[in-house]
Amino acid sequence: MALSGLFTPCARIMAHRALCRGLALTASSALDIRGIYPPITTPFTNQEEVDYEKLEENLQNYNHIPFRGFVVQGSNGEYAYLTSEERVEVVRRVRKAVPTNRLVIAGSGCESTQATIRMTEEMAKFGADAVLVVTPAYYRGRMTSTALIHHYSKVADCSPVPVVLYSVPGNTGLDIPVDAIVTLSQHQNIIGIKDSGGDVTRIGLIIHKTKRQGFQVLSGSASFLLAGYSIGAVGGICALANVLGAQLCALESMCLNDQWEEAKELQHRLIEPNAAVTRRFGVPGVKQVMEWYGYHGGPCRSPLLPLTDEEIKELKKAFTANGWL
Amino acid sequence: MALSGLFTPCARIMAHRALCRGLALTASSALDIRGIYPPITTPFTNQEEVDYEKLEENLQNYNHIPFRGFVVQGSNGEYAYLTSEERVEVVRRVRKAVPTNRLVIAGSGCESTQATIRMTEEMAKFGADAVLVVTPAYYRGRMTSTALIHHYSKVADCSPVPVVLYSVPGNTGLDIPVDAIVTLSQHQNIIGIKDSGGDVTRIGLIIHKTKRQGFQVLSGSASFLLAGYSIGAVGGICALANVLGAQLCALESMCLNDQWEEAKELQHRLIEPNAAVTRRFGVPGVKQVMEWYGYHGGPCRSPLLPLTDEEIKELKKAFTANGWL
Amino acid sequence: MALSGLFTPCARIMAHRALCRGLALTASSALDIRGIYPPITTPFTNQEEVDYEKLEENLQNYNHIPFRGFVVQGSNGEYAYLTSEERVEVVRRVRKAVPTNRLVIAGSGCESTQATIRMTEEMAKFGADAVLVVTPAYYRGRMTSTALIHHYSKVADCSPVPVVLYSVPGNTGLDIPVDAIVTLSQHQNIIGIKDSGGDVTRIGLIIHKTKRQGFQVLSGSASFLLAGYSIGAVGGICALANVLGAQLCALESMCLNDQWEEAKELQHRLIEPNAAVTRRFGVPGVKQVMEWYGYHGGPCRSPLLPLTDEEIKELKKAFTANGWL
Amino acid sequence: MALSGLFTPCARIMAHRALCRGLALTASSALDIRGIYPPITTPFTNQEEVDYEKLEENLQNYNHIPFRGFVVQGSNGEYAYLTSEERVEVVRRVRKAVPTNRLVIAGSGCESTQATIRMTEEMAKFGADAVLVVTPAYYRGRMTSTALIHHYSKVADCSPVPVVLYSVPGNTGLDIPVDAIVTLSQHQNIIGIKDSGGDVTRIGLIIHKTKRQGFQVLSGSASFLLAGYSIGAVGGICALANVLGAQLCALESMCLNDQWEEAKELQHRLIEPNAAVTRRFGVPGVKQVMEWYGYHGGPCRSPLLPLTDEEIKELKKAFTANGWL
Repeated sequence: MALSGLFTPCARIMAHRALCRGLALTASSALDIRGIYPPITTPFTNQEEVDYEKLEENLQNYNHIPFRGFVVQGSNGEYAYLTSEERVEVVRRVRKAVPTNRLVIAGSGCESTQATIRMTEEMAKFGADAVLVVTPAYYRGRMTSTALIHHYSKVADCSPVPVVLYSVPGNTGLDIPVDAIVTLSQHQNIIGIKDSGGDVTRIGLIIHKTKRQGFQVLSGSASFLLAGYSIGAVGGICALANVLGAQLCALESMCLNDQWEEAKELQHRLIEPNAAVTRRFGVPGVKQVMEWYGYHGGPCRSPLLPLTDEEIKELKKAFTANGWL
Repeated sequence: MALSGLFTPCARIMAHRALCRGLALTASSALDIRGIYPPITTPFTNQEEVDYEKLEENLQNYNHIPFRGFVVQGSNGEYAYLTSEERVEVVRRVRKAVPTNRLVIAGSGCESTQATIRMTEEMAKFGADAVLVVTPAYYRGRMTSTALIHHYSKVADCSPVPVVLYSVPGNTGLDIPVDAIVTLSQHQNIIGIKDSGGDVTRIGLIIHKTKRQGFQVLSGSASFLLAGYSIGAVGGICALANVLGAQLCALESMCLNDQWEEAKELQHRLIEPNAAVTRRFGVPGVKQVMEWYGYHGGPCRSPLLPLTDEEIKELKKAFTANGWL
Repeated sequence: MALSGLFTPCARIMAHRALCRGLALTASSALDIRGIYPPITTPFTNQEEVDYEKLEENLQNYNHIPFRGFVVQGSNGEYAYLTSEERVEVVRRVRKAVPTNRLVIAGSGCESTQATIRMTEEMAKFGADAVLVVTPAYYRGRMTSTALIHHYSKVADCSPVPVVLYSVPGNTGLDIPVDAIVTLSQHQNIIGIKDSGGDVTRIGLIIHKTKRQGFQVLSGSASFLLAGYSIGAVGGICALANVLGAQLCALESMCLNDQWEEAKELQHRLIEPNAAVTRRFGVPGVKQVMEWYGYHGGPCRSPLLPLTDEEIKELKKAFTANGWL
Repeated sequence: MALSGLFTPCARIMAHRALCRGLALTASSALDIRGIYPPITTPFTNQEEVDYEKLEENLQNYNHIPFRGFVVQGSNGEYAYLTSEERVEVVRRVRKAVPTNRLVIAGSGCESTQATIRMTEEMAKFGADAVLVVTPAYYRGRMTSTALIHHYSKVADCSPVPVVLYSVPGNTGLDIPVDAIVTLSQHQNIIGIKDSGGDVTRIGLIIHKTKRQGFQVLSGSASFLLAGYSIGAVGGICALANVLGAQLCALESMCLNDQWEEAKELQHRLIEPNAAVTRRFGVPGVKQVMEWYGYHGGPCRSPLLPLTDEEIKELKKAFTANGWL
């Protein structure tokens, strides 16, 4: 694996940009990303090294589920804990393990624009069909609409593959403002957004104001998947899909086939399990439940701790009480 | 109007309570509150006195709209600015002006439990079909589930009419915790909740966990009315219904008749107008738009200021841009 | 007690205002409010009625402590749970029980401007030396600088006694913006502020920008009393003064006499007890500790609950661990 | 520059740890970090490359100011935008440029524990006297006291130099809980904390509860430097020291020499300039003012944008209005 591009001077990238623009124009046109995706986790050994074999086994075990594809290095992939080399290598391995009719969407966001561009290029080189770019957030007081529009426009100008925006205020403390999204939706290489905030009013407004661009909105959590569909979202990237993937695909199917009553019943039973593996217990929660369902969960990287016995009990209850275990 | 009951010693109320319990049992059983309600505004004269005539004229002008009823003294009624006497008198006037086949739900919440009980009794006496009881919130740090359960149970024990919980964190900085709602839903005289927070995940969970009690959940704002219906809410109390009431009733009808595609299109066009008359410009915004639609809006009580010219322009744009003006 | 003024039409007040202005000009000039004040609690009987006798006994027990005066119906007085009549009557009783060389500052804030004016007039009539006016906050989204300036200016125009602003974001969710305070500090009848937010940067800036007006800033909590003095505050209105009043007066004395090292040692030992009777356990906490110190604490009004045994244990620890019990 | 250690497998580090513990015991004992530090900025070329020459010139220009030392890669160093190699190289250059009697405290925090350990080791190797370790925050919902204690203990176990905790909720959305700080203060290789939250109550409590350990608390912003000293802080790491360094050292001196009145006057004039270069305009603000004072400011890395003309005007006013320009 050659990573020479990762740490070369920014100047080359800058010069390269005029070229990029043309490239982007043809590359993006119309990638259809409708559907359900698990934001897959990254298995680690007990020494906290990436366990690529278990990663590949998980992917094989997902094969029978009608996912549209896989998101690599969303928040559940512990991307923040991976080195640059690991981030790229994980994408490379996933792409090889996943059938070509499934999309691989890779999380390439970094804090700086130039690092994000480099990461995007590397991930595209190794087979990502699209990139998911989280908001840079450390200096969130200065991450105005203008700053975010600059950032995402530059990344999209240079990206060989389509860009999906990623707004996850629970982790970043930052929402991309609606006006910035509307502006960015007009960029030919920005095709959609994963919105994990859960505010359906906001999601409805984004859909309303970008519909002419064919902008695709994905719900970022299973708890509002039905509500998202009702308002015009076209899919979901949901932590819960790592363990209840078939059920989420069934929910998608009900929504698309106007079986709203059944969808409602199913959705109700997913809220508590979803809360347990997101807000309540996060990635360690997802990984614990994966073990119960026959996938490889395993430890997180430090400083994420495994759940306590008490927490595991509460986690289990969220699944049993709703008939899932 | 005799208000002697309003300020008598609490002791009488307390003694009265054993009696209340029996009363409540028969009073509530099954009031059906499904449907759309405007939380009506309170017109004032230029001297900031309640203008009862204009109030009654507004109600007459709403007559042709298929509302289920009217909410008096929700947040849009500026109840926080009315004296105890005014609060009761407004309810009395509304009840007289409104046909008996329309419900009158009166906001009777005060900070203390005893004041809430007195207000509830007065409002019931003058014809309220149910009361809407906002969370006491000044000492929000101590308004735990336990405290809220105590408060609402006492009020419901004593109330001659059914009680609807009212959670409006935008004004109170306080959400009723879901576990408290589940407990309270088992009280025979507590029949539902108006939830204005807009978190459909939370709303879905409340519905899921109270469905055996026949607990009725009403969306507290028009921006998530469709999403609310999709997840099991049975109606809405929406500031926007003061001006786009027929449209909200049309949206209700679409949702109930499985016309989800049309519902979605309509919902999209309601989000910006709704934001303008709630979060953005509040009660002065609602009242301004009422003037444009031929209702009596007029001034708010101080310290609520009228909108500036700049704000009015922005407000108008939210309606024109969506085809409503 | 004649309360006829309390609920008369606003018009009279309005007409009265031209007169007020002149009155205010002479009334305020230079009330010196430097010093330490307990925001006294309101004792209740077991039936939750105001217990005026116990109130008076508490005041007598405070006599030996060199307080500058007493604040009646700050947040600790449960003013939000008192009827208008009770609010005025409590002030009347306190004024009678307190020696004339101690100030009585009465909390007269209500949500509406006109109710605040009426309450202010009543309280002044019954002997309040100044009024403390909490920010109206229910419609906090519209409580802009402009709205707050209007509100406080009108109240100060009409008030027969000097006005002290009261910013307590922990209860109201609202800070008076610094620019509004600077503007209001120029009103002849607005003489200071109680700031309970605890942000010494903000407090320092307020002092810096109002020093020409002789505006007096009081710390609203004992936890930053020393820091407040270091930056220019002239006193404190502190819940903790209800139980450790002598100690707070000692701390004041150390700060005024440049005994900063001793002051620091004392301040350190006050932080945990203070947190316990404010953020952690609120008014029920203060009242519980009052019992330990020989004052009348007693129950709060509902919905404020008494502390659980567990909470009492934790509360006690905050005092014993710092050598106060 | 050999960076081989940076990306080797974690296993080696883990095995290495038993050794570390002994090392740490002797390394830390009693580094005295009292005093004022600028958290220096990182100059970039117009192509956004690190400009090491300008970095060194800035350091020379700071030579005449009685700083205790320099903080490299605090938030103002845009560390989040530097590659691992750049982070280490900047520390190396700073150490070479700075006289040995000045401390170099290097920000070595990363999201994962293992990356933080590696970065810490590298920075120590190249001459950092201590490391400043920001809270990992991406998964803030799981960054409990337990998780933070684990993280910091592991880092401190392995660090060849003393560790200073860094709590900066404005950027991370996370405060280290006081109980975790108290526990960590007992670790021999953890010598203090930079607290940027500005809550002097919290700072006072930390000092109170760690004083037996000789734990050293540094104020993280100039706006509460005086208040910090009054309550027992021993210095400050302040963005404003990049431009008003002599003045902050003068303020320090006044506080240490009990000239509290003069200190207060000076402190007051620093609040608005400080707000302008922190909360209001952040790093681009600091860099802009550096240009006015004859230092190299220059551009930030994207996505941080330069200030607009309007913002520059406002920034300037914060300095001129207080007599600094």
